[in-house]
Amino acid sequence: MNPFVYDIPTKVYFGRDQLGNLSAELAQFGRCVLLAYGGGSIKRIGLYDKIMTQLTESGFEVVELAGIEPNPRIESVRRGVALCKENSVDVILAVGGGSTIDAAKFVAAGACVDHDAWEFFGANAKPIERALPIVTILTLAATGSEMDTAGVISNPETEDKLGRLARPLLPRVSFLDPTLTYSVSPYQTACGAADILSHIMEVYFNTQEDLFMLDKMMEGLMQTVVKFGPVAVRDGENYEARANLMWAGSWAINGFLNGGKRKAWSCHPMEHELSASYDITHGLGLAILTPRWMKHCLSVGMVDKFVSFGVNVFGVDATLEPMAIAEEAIRRLEHFLFEELGLQRTLTEVGIGREKLAEMSRKACRYGDIRGFVTLTPEDVERIYEMSL
Amino acid sequence: MNPFVYDIPTKVYFGRDQLGNLSAELAQFGRCVLLAYGGGSIKRIGLYDKIMTQLTESGFEVVELAGIEPNPRIESVRRGVALCKENSVDVILAVGGGSTIDAAKFVAAGACVDHDAWEFFGANAKPIERALPIVTILTLAATGSEMDTAGVISNPETEDKLGRLARPLLPRVSFLDPTLTYSVSPYQTACGAADILSHIMEVYFNTQEDLFMLDKMMEGLMQTVVKFGPVAVRDGENYEARANLMWAGSWAINGFLNGGKRKAWSCHPMEHELSASYDITHGLGLAILTPRWMKHCLSVGMVDKFVSFGVNVFGVDATLEPMAIAEEAIRRLEHFLFEELGLQRTLTEVGIGREKLAEMSRKACRYGDIRGFVTLTPEDVERIYEMSL
Repeated sequence: MNPFVYDIPTKVYFGRDQLGNLSAELAQFGRCVLLAYGGGSIKRIGLYDKIMTQLTESGFEVVELAGIEPNPRIESVRRGVALCKENSVDVILAVGGGSTIDAAKFVAAGACVDHDAWEFFGANAKPIERALPIVTILTLAATGSEMDTAGVISNPETEDKLGRLARPLLPRVSFLDPTLTYSVSPYQTACGAADILSHIMEVYFNTQEDLFMLDKMMEGLMQTVVKFGPVAVRDGENYEARANLMWAGSWAINGFLNGGKRKAWSCHPMEHELSASYDITHGLGLAILTPRWMKHCLSVGMVDKFVSFGVNVFGVDATLEPMAIAEEAIRRLEHFLFEELGLQRTLTEVGIGREKLAEMSRKACRYGDIRGFVTLTPEDVERIYEMSL
Repeated sequence: MNPFVYDIPTKVYFGRDQLGNLSAELAQFGRCVLLAYGGGSIKRIGLYDKIMTQLTESGFEVVELAGIEPNPRIESVRRGVALCKENSVDVILAVGGGSTIDAAKFVAAGACVDHDAWEFFGANAKPIERALPIVTILTLAATGSEMDTAGVISNPETEDKLGRLARPLLPRVSFLDPTLTYSVSPYQTACGAADILSHIMEVYFNTQEDLFMLDKMMEGLMQTVVKFGPVAVRDGENYEARANLMWAGSWAINGFLNGGKRKAWSCHPMEHELSASYDITHGLGLAILTPRWMKHCLSVGMVDKFVSFGVNVFGVDATLEPMAIAEEAIRRLEHFLFEELGLQRTLTEVGIGREKLAEMSRKACRYGDIRGFVTLTPEDVERIYEMSL
């Protein structure tokens, strides 16, 4: 069992009507706020007006970075960095889902250096030693960016979508109000649920020695997603479902579940190539790839983790043979993703063909084979893409 | 579902051989360290020498507060406060279990005020606005004091044992090395496991609306204690068991599991009277009381939580009638506490008779009826004590 350091000081206001604390939290960092958001859904739901009223009444100077796209692009980050530098911004308030928060993170880091923000990514990435403080208001349960040190940025020029972890990127304060996700569409809700489930599975399926307690907590979180994902898809204003998905989303990826495990993730690097090349929704890409990846990995020697997953998450009959339990677990996962959440089942359905599979496979392994639950070579990755067509 | 604030910034070094980071962590707070510890077990296991060598080599000035007793007393706190004031202590390093860390917390607070430390307790308690920073090295998995804002102090003069929560008491950094608990006796290990289980049950048995995900995580933590408590009792040097108990102990009570629930705890206030009057080990008192408290609370209207507990923690057959599941759950809990952990089953066995039951019942309700899972009047408390004889 590896040693580890647990250190997640993000303060979270969870529940309805907590936004009254926003000004007090921002004020500890300064008076000039960069308000970062996406395509305007925060205006439709009245959140933008609520925030602006509070901030202007409290005397903040507000600079706006609007229009951050899904799969956020380095160009948006560059715009934000320029705004921070021109206006001597003190703190960034990111209002939105993972895309907005991810972009805000690299704006925060970029504002503290002289080089271009894209240099934070890739094999010779520049260090991230400082960042402006980040406060978030979450409007989509999915990436967990509100409580972790990670972000992913796309560069359409190079067709790269690259992730980066750095301690200064951890949000200082996050507001999680489940009612702010009521208007998320059934499709985006489903993609979010698939993303959350994948974050847990990427850690759960692991050959390193486990802390049993963390495995049990992961199973509990996965049961939560399986139970409430479909409820939120059918009934967007179900508070219980939205609340469970939202808090599960943060804990799926804030690092607590790792407990010293150091294996690489598998489906995320494969998916990042799909959304880098085709701009599909991340959670959808994960949903399509994950069952195929499981089929690729399943063997007699690896069956134990599939058995726990099947029995403890999907309630598969524990008295069956291990391989039968594993296969049934994958079937139930498929049923969950493609029937209950209603996500598309194949790459073909979302307009992705064979044309870039080899190139994407090579790029997914740009830093070497993916050393996860089962090591994946570029050939393995291409096979999994093929299985997903 | 109530809103809540999640805010647990304690940094935790978990696992073997992390103590090398101690000096660097202490140095951020200053150069004069109050080293607080208990009866000397840290000398027997070589930990004292290891710490002193590192601290003196790193140039710290070390003041010692030794001899903090189990069920720590206000007199030890007063001694510590005096040492802090005389020596202008910058940071407190508490090395031990919950008793040592609890005492250190009120030393830390007492060092920042002019009044006596006992005035932090009771109905007219003084506020705790500041405290010296606290760093802990945990040597016993039980109270969770290493990652929470709470402490309990005894006053033998008044036969009071009173708890207090205050934000400044939260340890800044805690070192959790499971190997430091290898030498904990089977009896103390059993008491620790019972304490951890009780912390979770006090939150789990609740009539307020739940976050399903937290209930599932609680069930996972309870399963962890049930699985590894007996292993650690039988085989003290089992790293897996010690590690699971240790990390479960922190998460049982650091506040994460509450998720906005506001009901009072039930068994803890009843137990505090036992250990205030008879100085018995807290975990043992909880073990004796808890099954009786459950029998007192069980009714058709309250049966659901017992059913989840029985099925999901102890694997009771879910097809039985609810009341049968509940009764079987209590039987399995008793088997766990009194057979597998080997704890004493009755108050009589530990030398407690009827003589103070009425007085203790009155004191347990000193702030009014205990408004927990089921509201307990002084008469109810006395009945539960009687059942425990």
